[in-house]
Amino acid sequence: MRIIGIDPGLAKTGWGIIESEGSKLRHVAHGTCVSHGDALADRLLDLFSSLSGVLREYVPDAAAVEQTFVNKDGAGTLKLGQARGIAMLAPAQAGLRVGEYAPNAIKKCVVGVGHADKRQVAHMIGLQFPGVVLGGPDAIDALAIAVCHAHHHGSQQSLERAIARAWR
Amino acid sequence: MRIIGIDPGLAKTGWGIIESEGSKLRHVAHGTCVSHGDALADRLLDLFSSLSGVLREYVPDAAAVEQTFVNKDGAGTLKLGQARGIAMLAPAQAGLRVGEYAPNAIKKCVVGVGHADKRQVAHMIGLQFPGVVLGGPDAIDALAIAVCHAHHHGSQQSLERAIARAWR
Repeated sequence: MRIIGIDPGLAKTGWGIIESEGSKLRHVAHGTCVSHGDALADRLLDLFSSLSGVLREYVPDAAAVEQTFVNKDGAGTLKLGQARGIAMLAPAQAGLRVGEYAPNAIKKCVVGVGHADKRQVAHMIGLQFPGVVLGGPDAIDALAIAVCHAHHHGSQQSLERAIARAWR
Repeated sequence: MRIIGIDPGLAKTGWGIIESEGSKLRHVAHGTCVSHGDALADRLLDLFSSLSGVLREYVPDAAAVEQTFVNKDGAGTLKLGQARGIAMLAPAQAGLRVGEYAPNAIKKCVVGVGHADKRQVAHMIGLQFPGVVLGGPDAIDALAIAVCHAHHHGSQQSLERAIARAWR
């Protein structure tokens, strides 16, 4: 299964694509969509076009997006929400199911603890995909989201197999 | 000029289309896009598809979206932000410039005072378009946004004409 992880942001949206086969994970590609323009509508269109281009190029089977952290800064939350709307829409329009994971769940999955910092996440992603030259922090976070989705999907499949065996 | 006004919301997004010719305004159509589904991605896709359908059907020349009120409820702001991202994207993708107006500016334009309530806005929109059977509150707000954009556009054109005359 080919999975795209997306870390949404209005200025920069990271994306990372991996392939999972059983418990094996393989890095496919990663990068950052940067939005240009002064007008909000232009920037959102920029993000949508870039992300749709990535989806057309790599044709993933599933998508996962980070659940945005709601902070006290209303204007920041609104900005992030708008970018997140685009990050959810692009894969949904491509016919993909879009998983959502909280930041703590992603960290716990990749590093083993929910309160890990960004450097630890980057370190573990580097170990997971040796030889891959990692891009910016948004793309690394996006790869972490994809890894988290692969693990959850794997566990779900194991559970389904176990249930099927029990009922056989 | 044909203008679409959009009042974004995750559950219901209102839209209203008017035509302005000089100071004359004519009602074209209005309605509400309702999102279905449990998954957020599905609901956003629903909104985007409906709104894109409205744009294809009525082919407006310009769009205007309400500037979302940032409140203290972070989760609500995020939800609204995601819907607003879609409400801005759809007209931008259709090649339209998207104006943004604060709720107070819209009320001031339609009712004359910035602190008007929803009933006053509905009343004035009813007077503006006599004979039109008005739909739900989101669609009425969307018509108010379109009226606000028409006024601003009109004033801008008058200003540009005045400047041109002054330099003649």
